[in-house]
Amino acid sequence: MTDRPALLIMQRHLAPLTAFLESQWTVYRFWEGPPLEAQAEIRALVVAGEFPLDKALIEQLPRLQLIACFTSGYDRIDTAWCKARGLPVTHAPGVNHEDVADHAIGLILAARRQIAAGDRAFRAGEWTADSKMITPSLHGQRVGIVGLGGIGEAVARRAEALRMTVRWWGPREKAAAWPRAASLPELARDSDILVVACKADDSNIGLISREVIEALGPHGLLVNVARGQLVDEDALIAALKDGRLGQAALDVFEDEPTDIARWADVPNTVLTPHTAGATTEAVQGMLMLLMQNLTAAFAGEPLKTPVPETA
Amino acid sequence: MTDRPALLIMQRHLAPLTAFLESQWTVYRFWEGPPLEAQAEIRALVVAGEFPLDKALIEQLPRLQLIACFTSGYDRIDTAWCKARGLPVTHAPGVNHEDVADHAIGLILAARRQIAAGDRAFRAGEWTADSKMITPSLHGQRVGIVGLGGIGEAVARRAEALRMTVRWWGPREKAAAWPRAASLPELARDSDILVVACKADDSNIGLISREVIEALGPHGLLVNVARGQLVDEDALIAALKDGRLGQAALDVFEDEPTDIARWADVPNTVLTPHTAGATTEAVQGMLMLLMQNLTAAFAGEPLKTPVPETA
Repeated sequence: MTDRPALLIMQRHLAPLTAFLESQWTVYRFWEGPPLEAQAEIRALVVAGEFPLDKALIEQLPRLQLIACFTSGYDRIDTAWCKARGLPVTHAPGVNHEDVADHAIGLILAARRQIAAGDRAFRAGEWTADSKMITPSLHGQRVGIVGLGGIGEAVARRAEALRMTVRWWGPREKAAAWPRAASLPELARDSDILVVACKADDSNIGLISREVIEALGPHGLLVNVARGQLVDEDALIAALKDGRLGQAALDVFEDEPTDIARWADVPNTVLTPHTAGATTEAVQGMLMLLMQNLTAAFAGEPLKTPVPETA
Repeated sequence: MTDRPALLIMQRHLAPLTAFLESQWTVYRFWEGPPLEAQAEIRALVVAGEFPLDKALIEQLPRLQLIACFTSGYDRIDTAWCKARGLPVTHAPGVNHEDVADHAIGLILAARRQIAAGDRAFRAGEWTADSKMITPSLHGQRVGIVGLGGIGEAVARRAEALRMTVRWWGPREKAAAWPRAASLPELARDSDILVVACKADDSNIGLISREVIEALGPHGLLVNVARGQLVDEDALIAALKDGRLGQAALDVFEDEPTDIARWADVPNTVLTPHTAGATTEAVQGMLMLLMQNLTAAFAGEPLKTPVPETA
């Protein structure tokens, strides 16, 4: 036992947070097998929201008082279960949506203008005097945005600067500068590029279904910077393989990290390892919110950024 | 001899133009070794402006009346020599500058947000549970634009939509929405990202010198969507190898196609095979101008888009 509150970091890729958190608290790291006596000490879990909670572990931590989600998204966190146990959950909203939108635009350009494939062809020595790679202009391409929240609106503004037209769909009508489609399949049918930018929760798993993918069609590009489980990934892979979908540019996947074997022979893809929101600046902002939430929790003060109450 | 005017396509990568041009004219292709009798017939050369004219060949074509440059750029065409021989030169201005600007933005995102490198790492199976690629936000990055013509202005507008700040430099002052730096080295010193977007001519070969590259510095990104000879490529490669320059994202090269061996061990690059302006839509627009210029020349009418008179 120490006098400093103790916390437990759950995911290995959050290891770089350790040095910052150790400046104020005792830090254990789950993957290192913390000592048995830590169980009585740990007062907060530091987690990434795209991973499910280890509920069995949580039930063995008598002093636990906070689930501190480092990320903005907390889709795999069972907030109802936490609430029922009196365990508050915090997250990092509003920090990285503009960076995620930049990445979405980068994925559109990398896919449509063949920047990733061109770079690969160049490195493979495939640029010859009689080759010429012709790519489609972005001018006038119709972008459909699924979910017009912070990320979606930021994608929309950028898409217009790149001479594309914008429509969107989300389950609820809202005041917006761009027209809302009557349904998601209609949005997909009337789009050249579909950008998934909505919040993931239990209600929208597999939202981008085989029907939506086929509506986007053989010339369509699917971009996902939200969460992998929003897309029926098996249907996506099948559609890319037999040409029912033109291209996919993905930063998120059903399972992360993803086994490359699953994607190795899938054509017409640009694939990035969940980096859209992970900029130096955003990570600093998320770290600041994490530390403010931990400080507040240990002092018994109101939390800085708890997750919203669900209905 | 036929009744239809004859023309000669010089570069292999222009071969796809053949079918369109054959609908109206007799078409020879240089790389196929046209028959000797074609010499007396050929009235126009169809060329790409990034390749020097074959002057010895031209002197053997008594009926030649037009150098029809398919591209916008005509930097390797000796227009003074053509003018002295009474040979007009046409090109395709104002068709693809917005597409080139899109590609420049795509290169910035591919390099800064590591979209190309992330895609390669993903495919190499390097995404693991304890890896996390953190990239710099574009927010607040300072873009310096070399040459504020059609491409430069289009890059500037897009850079602002992506939350970057814009300055520029060109040899002549002009009314602009963005401040002009006092000199090119000063622009490079005060920029995080330098985008080469100027017209190339005999006066600015090697404009992006070792001095400019070092002023941009170890965290700087050089983007070139103009012409390869504007950059001292040996100095660029040396600076990338020893870290005096941070990154380069290049669509154009001193020699094209470029031998990949020259770039194989150069770190921190995104390399595309001169595709920035080659969109389906731009190529259609360039083809239309090419055919209008050929039609006018053969009819003895004013040319649609001759290259500008030089002082």
